[in-house]
Amino acid sequence: MVVEVLNTGTELLLGDVLNTHAAWFGKQLLALDLSISRQTTVPDGEAIRSALRESFSRADVILVTGGLGPTTDDLTREITADLLGLELVADAEVRRKIEALVVERGSTMRVRMLRQTMIPRGATVLPNDFGSAPGLYLPGKESPRSPHLFLLPGPPREMQPMFTASVLPLLKKLNGSVPHRECRIYRIVGMGESAVEECVGLGLSERGDLDVGYCARPNEVDLRLIGAPQTLDEVEPKILAAVGNHLFSRTAENLEDWVVTRLREQGRRVATAESCSGGLLAHRLTNVPGASEVFTHGFIVYSNEAKTALLGVPQKMLEDWGAVSEPVARSLAEGALEKSGADFALSLTGIAGPGGGSTEKPLGLLFIGLARRGKPTLCKNHLFPRDRETFKQLATQTALDMLRHELL
Amino acid sequence: MVVEVLNTGTELLLGDVLNTHAAWFGKQLLALDLSISRQTTVPDGEAIRSALRESFSRADVILVTGGLGPTTDDLTREITADLLGLELVADAEVRRKIEALVVERGSTMRVRMLRQTMIPRGATVLPNDFGSAPGLYLPGKESPRSPHLFLLPGPPREMQPMFTASVLPLLKKLNGSVPHRECRIYRIVGMGESAVEECVGLGLSERGDLDVGYCARPNEVDLRLIGAPQTLDEVEPKILAAVGNHLFSRTAENLEDWVVTRLREQGRRVATAESCSGGLLAHRLTNVPGASEVFTHGFIVYSNEAKTALLGVPQKMLEDWGAVSEPVARSLAEGALEKSGADFALSLTGIAGPGGGSTEKPLGLLFIGLARRGKPTLCKNHLFPRDRETFKQLATQTALDMLRHELL
Repeated sequence: MVVEVLNTGTELLLGDVLNTHAAWFGKQLLALDLSISRQTTVPDGEAIRSALRESFSRADVILVTGGLGPTTDDLTREITADLLGLELVADAEVRRKIEALVVERGSTMRVRMLRQTMIPRGATVLPNDFGSAPGLYLPGKESPRSPHLFLLPGPPREMQPMFTASVLPLLKKLNGSVPHRECRIYRIVGMGESAVEECVGLGLSERGDLDVGYCARPNEVDLRLIGAPQTLDEVEPKILAAVGNHLFSRTAENLEDWVVTRLREQGRRVATAESCSGGLLAHRLTNVPGASEVFTHGFIVYSNEAKTALLGVPQKMLEDWGAVSEPVARSLAEGALEKSGADFALSLTGIAGPGGGSTEKPLGLLFIGLARRGKPTLCKNHLFPRDRETFKQLATQTALDMLRHELL
Repeated sequence: MVVEVLNTGTELLLGDVLNTHAAWFGKQLLALDLSISRQTTVPDGEAIRSALRESFSRADVILVTGGLGPTTDDLTREITADLLGLELVADAEVRRKIEALVVERGSTMRVRMLRQTMIPRGATVLPNDFGSAPGLYLPGKESPRSPHLFLLPGPPREMQPMFTASVLPLLKKLNGSVPHRECRIYRIVGMGESAVEECVGLGLSERGDLDVGYCARPNEVDLRLIGAPQTLDEVEPKILAAVGNHLFSRTAENLEDWVVTRLREQGRRVATAESCSGGLLAHRLTNVPGASEVFTHGFIVYSNEAKTALLGVPQKMLEDWGAVSEPVARSLAEGALEKSGADFALSLTGIAGPGGGSTEKPLGLLFIGLARRGKPTLCKNHLFPRDRETFKQLATQTALDMLRHELL
């Protein structure tokens, strides 16, 4: 069943309002083993006519949002009826509902609101529990061919409950008994996108029965497979073997969620000593609800003086080795472990740029220290010559991954 | 000039990743007095072929994102060349750049990365400063008619700088005569969107010669006016009078940029003591290049023990008043001022949720302390009953605004 989404709304194309419809519909449809073949946004007004007509020839189902309101640029109802050659008739029940809503809101019924009571003949009204514009379902036809059309309001707070209550059940019925497919996501850290594909390649993308996709973020890759459960079961062991413990999640969980959850389960705590990452590591940890159980002390030591005063890094060490060095990374981590009484302490010291690089210590150089209670301190160095914010993201992601290995 | 946007990426249709491209392009194009006539999203792979072909007949300019990566589902380059009947040729310069990047990142060149060095004959390479996939510009032709095509990488962190550096200047040239309309943005803090509209209203939106738009973020509003320069000059004084010193920028500068710049100019430093904001304030400050001149010490004191041990908050005060209280906010700020030797210290203590609220101290309660060298400490309380991440954003934005008033 080919599903298309058509959004109308000038505001979605001006940068004021983010179009969240495609992502939201995408998630809902996955549960029915359906996906969106195409999503289109057009401005308010007449532009919907050609987009709708083109979509007619491709789609079995079209989900239309927006243009059902009372103002003159809301034309979805009228244009759809026109394209299908259907008359618009006033619906008494819809009118009663709108009048009741107007009273409830202490407002008065305006003439232009009457447009919302006009329904194309043969359409099913989808009740709107959060606004005045009702949704409409226009069943598909064989000849002349037309797809199933769902006209839905634009505001997500009205559209989403309507979709769940009225559209999903209809789609389920229309979808009948299609072979069941599933979507699985493997979230991977410490391996680049190309490396992941090379490693799990195994002819995955050549198979006709699997959709394979990749989505890359700084030091994180999602490998996404869509296929029949038995096909997925068949390839999964090979994938798991190939990526090994670079795989950290099979849900949309973030690395910080994973780390905080494991620390909680294990009753352990982590502290942070950040120089170049400037608080981002602490920020990521504390985005996770309940982080206070596992994270109590964080130090941002941006200057040498702060490194010495707050975490006891010897001044001589800073002079001899420089702030961006292995001994200082170790000393920062050990200082934070001691001051916090935590079980682990992560330290980051590096050159985020844009300035401050040298031949000996280039831009993007990073040392991560990991002090562990009762075990020797670890230290690794990396080179991430990227823009400042990406550097911070990569640095903290890599630090979290280092801690992850302690929690496996 | 008819501009269309074509996004490829299965992840944009599955609900994992929000498509921010249309909104972002919309904003950029406004500055050229252009707008998007249609935006389309298709999955990775072959689907781009028909969408692109259809767009050819309507658009003068097509902005394509995604599908330029090294993996097998990235086909934008190949399909575009095929549709235009252009041969793909290996580009030595692109290859050198990718090889240099691979070396710089301490990685190895993989065979599949070579695909990214293939360029349709006649295309202009748009350098990618933040990733391996170069962008491509294919100039439009009269006969057979083809529009101007810009092939851009999917990740916003790569695409956006490329657009600004390479695409905007080309679009400006294509657009011909200097746009007769101008876009001005007024960035406002400490005033809600409705309050801004009420305050600057003055019949702005009733004027036929001005496009008025608002874009709201947590405790930040952009008022956007598009019109002829003389019209803008005429209304601007009224706007400036109406918003007073809530206006902090007339560029896209962030509040943290503003604060760090002023601190540098004034040779002053700030320290942070964060409880509920968990490092976000420090993270925002250190996102600004050169922050190390004005920010040296940050404390994340998530537990009571840390508040006492690191910043000397009296244990009795914590028992009597609780951690989320005015005395503790003051004590945190003063402790950070003393430990850091800075000129200002901001503290944040509050209830970010989702748990931890009570009748007396509800979810979203926040105290911000501001200690000032040689002047009495300030403290303000707020109530931001929002989700955890929005709360952190609002809390830090409001704290930065409090410091801003000291720097005016």
